[in-house]
Order: sequence, then structure tokens, then C-alpha cells
Amino acid sequence: PKTQIIAVGTELLSPTQLDTNSLFITQQLNLLGIQVTRKSVVGDQEEDISNVLMASVEHSELVFVTGGLGPTKDDITREVAANLFKRKLVFDPLIMESIEIRARKCGLQLTKNNRRQAMVPEEAEVLFNFKGTAPGLLLNVNGALLFLLPGPPRELKPMVAEQVVKILKETFPVSVQLSRHLAVAAMPESRVDAMLEPIYCQYPQVKTTILSSPGIINLHFSCSGSSQAEEFTLEKLIGKIRTKLGKSLFTETGQTLPQVVGGCLKKKGLSLATAESCTGGLLSKLITDIPGSSDYFRGGVVTYSNDLKELFLGLPTSMLQKGVVSDAVACYMARSVRDRTGASVGLSVTGIAGPGGGTDEKPVGLVFLGLCQDGSISARKHVFPGGRKVIRRQAALYALDWLRRELM
Amino acid sequence: PKTQIIAVGTELLSPTQLDTNSLFITQQLNLLGIQVTRKSVVGDQEEDISNVLMASVEHSELVFVTGGLGPTKDDITREVAANLFKRKLVFDPLIMESIEIRARKCGLQLTKNNRRQAMVPEEAEVLFNFKGTAPGLLLNVNGALLFLLPGPPRELKPMVAEQVVKILKETFPVSVQLSRHLAVAAMPESRVDAMLEPIYCQYPQVKTTILSSPGIINLHFSCSGSSQAEEFTLEKLIGKIRTKLGKSLFTETGQTLPQVVGGCLKKKGLSLATAESCTGGLLSKLITDIPGSSDYFRGGVVTYSNDLKELFLGLPTSMLQKGVVSDAVACYMARSVRDRTGASVGLSVTGIAGPGGGTDEKPVGLVFLGLCQDGSISARKHVFPGGRKVIRRQAALYALDWLRRELM
Repeated sequence: PKTQIIAVGTELLSPTQLDTNSLFITQQLNLLGIQVTRKSVVGDQEEDISNVLMASVEHSELVFVTGGLGPTKDDITREVAANLFKRKLVFDPLIMESIEIRARKCGLQLTKNNRRQAMVPEEAEVLFNFKGTAPGLLLNVNGALLFLLPGPPRELKPMVAEQVVKILKETFPVSVQLSRHLAVAAMPESRVDAMLEPIYCQYPQVKTTILSSPGIINLHFSCSGSSQAEEFTLEKLIGKIRTKLGKSLFTETGQTLPQVVGGCLKKKGLSLATAESCTGGLLSKLITDIPGSSDYFRGGVVTYSNDLKELFLGLPTSMLQKGVVSDAVACYMARSVRDRTGASVGLSVTGIAGPGGGTDEKPVGLVFLGLCQDGSISARKHVFPGGRKVIRRQAALYALDWLRRELM
Repeated sequence: PKTQIIAVGTELLSPTQLDTNSLFITQQLNLLGIQVTRKSVVGDQEEDISNVLMASVEHSELVFVTGGLGPTKDDITREVAANLFKRKLVFDPLIMESIEIRARKCGLQLTKNNRRQAMVPEEAEVLFNFKGTAPGLLLNVNGALLFLLPGPPRELKPMVAEQVVKILKETFPVSVQLSRHLAVAAMPESRVDAMLEPIYCQYPQVKTTILSSPGIINLHFSCSGSSQAEEFTLEKLIGKIRTKLGKSLFTETGQTLPQVVGGCLKKKGLSLATAESCTGGLLSKLITDIPGSSDYFRGGVVTYSNDLKELFLGLPTSMLQKGVVSDAVACYMARSVRDRTGASVGLSVTGIAGPGGGTDEKPVGLVFLGLCQDGSISARKHVFPGGRKVIRRQAALYALDWLRRELM
């Protein structure tokens, strides 16, 4: 089906914001063999939204509109659509009740604006919102399916993944697209590409996309059609890539690096403690992003100042005086946090995240990682490119990936 | 003028790529007082491009099309536009010559496709491309200005910044836009809107946009025109909003909450230490996102497991046994981390981030914050909505905002 995604919101027409909801919707659609034909962004003005909606249902069989369902005055998608397609808005007491239950649970005061969110265009199907107040709506406009979905990603994603996908599967026969996703950490994109290009360029029928973010390289391989021949080709390519990457490959199942590390620790019955300086808590934040991380993560210290390195880790004054960005300090931090907490593994980071504090000898981006497990302690030196944010992110992810390789 | 940006390219309809050229164009336009009305992405199919182009010149006075001017077979923007608007394509020997010079300089072999790039629709103005082969084109379609621009950012950006901006300045009198940005933390969006709506709805000439993310509400106010009258109106509105929000308003200068808190601490010569349980390092990560945070942040502990609460904070066994999600534990953590580190202020978080671990009595989302300064210790209880990520984010930001209010 011809398919359009429309994002509503004046903020998405600014020089700094992009509509990223469409990426998630596209991904879910592609898994059903549906390709997106067109995407649009439109501001919160009635006339503009009307024009876009009208054109979309004329040219497409499947239209997704995100945003503009919230309780504020500039959220007008629901009203514009009802008006344009001549559907009366009817108050739905069930939606109002669920909004009230939600508000009570969170201790929030309802405003009269929340009542607008319980208004449903006639003959529309309601998609329940488990993460927020605005329900999704599905209208059939002269045969075109028009989905009105909430803008906040945490509300939109589960609604699409569960309810929208279910409706689409029933409506459109699935023509599966084969795809695989691999990820590599702690390597620069150019090196990954130089390694893999001679392999994937031999498979022009498979689309290869390499996406990098600081510390993580995502590899996407896909081919349309799902015959045995295509499956065989894709598996052959993946096999070669897997062999070439070796230990560098950390997931083929979409797990994040902290998930994989957590899985390894849990499987081996090991526990982890961290000692962070320049990452300032980012390493332990990434570890505890994972539900259930308390099974293997004991905690850690953020010894941002020198006296906390002394207080919580017992770092001797002599080492402090020589400067705390060194392999010796990284080792000491890892060993000390392991010993003091009784964890199986101690992981540490010390470095210069910038923008200030760099010297010729110890430039911004210089980071030492420390790892202590059983009797062995070692340190690694890195000089990361980029600004403060990118340096901190790489430091935390390289530390996690080092631990992963050691656990494998 | 009504303004549209259209990106052409099937790759921009994938689940992984976004059109970022539009951000640069938007930025350049905003500097000229021109707001973007709509953005679209369309694939490389003739029919789709035609539909989008036709609709755009009907609804807009200013249209920017990026991409599809390259030498490959799927680059068809030039031909589709010429065909749609009934302009003959005429060979331009000057463009061909510059393409040849460029190719020779770079040691590239010309293909017969490059000749297509020297074809110009009748009556189109040519924008020279100093960074690549495809020239830009400007067509006047019934009064609408239609710019066809190359897709690669390194070619597009200088062309827009130099040639396009020059043409726009001549065509549209510059009307600067006045805008203000305020931000509020630790309040739900619906409550902020209910407070402010009676004020901002009295100023229809000012455009109000409310953007919320977990824990932070951003308020954008703008009006076009820059006369003294408009400036006065905007200031009057901002003054009322400021009074209404009171202490809840944390910035009018675009600073983030951790920046504002850091600024307050620095100004007062105070230092901070944190003790985190359910946020697992996120609070200290947010604090140390700020360059120079070592001036006031000493560090902290991530006491994710109970024995680390005992080890690093000395939490007595009797308290541990009663359960660590309570106001008493939050107070103890804040006081202990302050006392042990010698910081002026101790800030703590303990709670249930989920998805597991909730009970009827202590549900997922229940969080206690603790603050200890001088002789005073207190705790606050919150029940945050949302999933693990959103709960953790709110817990950290509400803690920071509480500290900010205390410091004010």
C-alpha cells in the first residue's frame, strides 16, 4: 500500500529538531513488508494540517499521523481530522475513566483540557494508550486507513508495536523482508567498513547499511523477498561477516552492550562494581539502564574529586600527587573498588573529558580504563576524539566492551 | 512566505536515515525571518515527486527541493520538474565545461550521465556548485520560487549560505522574529499548561509552544516582526508568565537544569555529593555533563545493593531490614554522603524504577529524595508515571530541581 507518515508539531520545523517517530514506524512497517512512500512534517496550524491530511488520504491507502493529541491548546490533530472528514466528536466515558485512573495513580490534577482527550470521532476505532493519556485513533476515510497516534515516543512505540501492527497484519498480507542486525563496539566506523566492504560488496542483492554512534557501530543487512534462496544468500553473507568480526561482534539479537555484559555476568554468577572519575556516573547509569541489573551490579563510586578517590578508594597521596590520569591510578581504582565492595570484578575509568584540563602530555580525550578480576589487574590507554559528551560516552562503552571480551 | 522543504531520495525513507539538510536550510531561513511551514520526504519515483512538487507550488511561495540532481539513473528531480512545469531542457555548454574542468582536476572519468547535469529547464536561473558537479536551479512557477538543490550537505550548504540567501534577501524584506525560551522542571505538562493558558491565550499575536520531556517543560514564545510594539507585547507576556511561574521557572537563557544548579552552587561557594540507589549514577552523570562541574561536585556513591548502602553510607541493619525505599533511608543517605565527603550539600535518591520490584504498598515509580544541608535534613516522596527510563529520569531531575529551589 502507498504509505505516508505525517508528524504534527511546530517544534519539528525548527532548525534543531527532527521527527524521529517516523523511523520507528518505518522499521515496524518494513518488518511487515510495507515500504513508506512519503513523510511530512507540518506545524500546529489548522489550515496546514488540513491540507496535508486531505492530500494524504487522496494519494495513500495507509496514513500515520503522530503528535497533536496532547491536552494543550496547540494540540489540534483530533479536532482537525474530525472536522475535515465530517465526523462528529463524541465523548467516550471509558477513555475519561482511564485518564482519571491514570491521574489518580500518579497523583496528578486533571484539567478541563484532559476532557478533550476523551473525545472520539464517530466510527473511529480507539487504540488504548498504556503510557499516557491520549488514546490513538483509527479512521477509515474512503478506504484509506488513517491512524492518529500520540507524539511522545514512549507512548507511541508500544501502541505501534502492539496494536497498530496487529491491525496491519490483519489488513495487509505480509510479504516478509529478511533482515539481520549485528553490532560492534569499541571500533572506529572507518575500520569496520574497511574490514567488511570486501565482503558485503560481493552481495549486491543484500542492502548493507552501516550506522555509527560514538562507541557503537550498527550493521543492518536486508533483502526483500523471503524465499529459501534469499535466506541462504543472507545467511552466507552473515556467516562471513561473523567470522571476520570475531570477538568484536557483540550482538546479533539487538541487545545493547550493557545487556550483553549483564547477561555474561549473570551467566557466570559474577558481580561488578565500578569506580568512575571522568565519566561521572555514566558507566553505572548505562549498567543500571537494564532491568534486573541489581542481580549482578553492586554499585560503585563516582570519585570526581581527588579527596573522594582517597576517601572511598584509599588512593595514596603519593599517587594523587603524580596526577590521577594514569594506568597506575586506573588499576588502583579497579582493584580497590573490587576489594572494598567484595564484587567479583572491578571496572574503572579515569581521564580528561574536557573541554578544559588538557595538556600537551595529557590531552583532552586521554582516558585510562582499569579492570580487576581474580588476581589479575590491567589498564588500557585510549585517546578518544570528539567533545566532552562523545569522549565520556566512548570511555564508558569501551570499558564495558573490554569487560565483555574478558568474560567471553 | 509559506515555505516548504522537500527532500528527494528513497534512502531517506528507511528506518535509519533522516533528512538533515532541512535543518541547515531552516536555520538559514530563520535568520532571514522566514519560518518553514512544511517539510516532506519523498522517494525517487516520478509519480511521487510530481505529486509533491505540484502540491508544493500550489500551497507555498517558497519551495526548496534537495537531492535527485546527481548523475545516477535514480536522480530524476530535474527531469520531473521540467516535465511537470512544461519547461524544455536546454543544454548549457558553460555548465558542461565546468563539469569537465572539475572531473579533470579530480582525475575522474565523465560518464554520459554527467551530460544530464548540464541540462537546464528553460528560464531557470543556474546556481553554481563549487563543491560538486550538479548545479542548483531556480524556477519561477506562477510566482512561487522553486529551488532545486543538490543533496550532499557539503555541496548544498555553501550554495544555500551564499547564493540562495542572497536571492532571498533581495526578494523578501527581512522581518526579524522575536522569540523567548523559558523552562520549568518537576511539574507535569498539563499543570503548567493549565496555569499558563489563561495568560498566553490573551496574546494571540504571540505564538506559544509547550514541549515536554520527562521532568522538563520547555516554553517557546515567538512573534514575527521586531517593532517596539511587538517587543513590548512579548515582554509583557513574559513578565506575566514569569510572575505566575515564580520559583518554578529555572531558566530564561536556555541553560539546562544541571547548569543552573551548578551555577547556584558555584555562586554560593557550596559543594555537592550524591548518594544514588534507583537512578544508578544518572544523577551524577547529569551533574557532570556540565564542563567545570568539578568546581562544585565532589562525587558520590551508587549504592545499588544493600550491602553497599551499609559499606559506603553506614546505613544500619535495622533500617535495611525495614526496606530501603523510605523517607528515613533517603534522609540517612543524604546526611551520610554529606558528612562522609565533607560536602556542603548531600542529595539522595532511593526508589523503585521497575519494571519488577513493585508491591501494592510500594509501587513501581515510588521514589524518595533526600536533601541535607547545614543542620537540616528532609525527604520528599514522589510517585512517577512511566517506564523504568522515564521514572529514573524524573527522579534525577526532580532531585536537582528541589536542590535548585533550596539554593534560590
